[in-house]
Amino acid sequence: MKIREVIAGKAIQDVVTIRPDATVRELVALLAQHNIGAAVVSSDGTTVDGIVSERDVVRRLNGDDGAMTDTVAQIMTSQVQTAEPSSSLDDVRALMTEGRFRHLPVCDGDQLVGVVSIGDVVKAYIDQVEFERDQLDSYVHQT
Amino acid sequence: MKIREVIAGKAIQDVVTIRPDATVRELVALLAQHNIGAAVVSSDGTTVDGIVSERDVVRRLNGDDGAMTDTVAQIMTSQVQTAEPSSSLDDVRALMTEGRFRHLPVCDGDQLVGVVSIGDVVKAYIDQVEFERDQLDSYVHQT
Repeated sequence: MKIREVIAGKAIQDVVTIRPDATVRELVALLAQHNIGAAVVSSDGTTVDGIVSERDVVRRLNGDDGAMTDTVAQIMTSQVQTAEPSSSLDDVRALMTEGRFRHLPVCDGDQLVGVVSIGDVVKAYIDQVEFERDQLDSYVHQT
Repeated sequence: MKIREVIAGKAIQDVVTIRPDATVRELVALLAQHNIGAAVVSSDGTTVDGIVSERDVVRRLNGDDGAMTDTVAQIMTSQVQTAEPSSSLDDVRALMTEGRFRHLPVCDGDQLVGVVSIGDVVKAYIDQVEFERDQLDSYVHQT
């Protein structure tokens, strides 16, 4: 299975982005508005400058009460790994598990085309393994 | 598979608790110290008053800059569902998926004995389905 199929299967395919010069306060409002845990950071809405999550906000708040007026650029992860639509589910699952990434931007060239969560990836993998098990089980019980 | 086996398989089995009268600032420090996303709220360290997560902090911060001095009791989820050590993996996975719970306290009677994350539960389920598939595959290819 390819990542493009995982994206195609998501109920909401829109990617929520925020500019790097937005404040943490604006980010907190955006996350609440969309009921999401992370946003892609992008100056132009199509190229990826980084990714920023609830965890980044909460960690920054530890010992820094002024964090709400910081910019997204100050708290984001900028060395962000990405997947391509043609990446295999297995490769992306390994990358996210090993790197402990909860969200991964998906880019076609340098154009952002989606985001997959570890939940999306794991669900697609479970569906695949259950299908394989059930096919084998049917085979065993018909012969 | 039972939930007690899922807990037994976790690298870290300690449960991090915080008192309901602690401040959000103390909670933020605790989450950073243990590198976790949620804590069980407990007055005495053994009974469950609620659960509180990074998401609760970030949502409270939306439009409320004074949130850091709020108490944990003000932002926690108090109507919290729990599992028992004897609960089945399938039941707990269904409960967490349907309720969109990322963490679930595990209680023996009214005594807190562990916490499982959706990641723990999904990993145990994947291991189980892969095992069933591989057993069937071996059977098919030896006959």
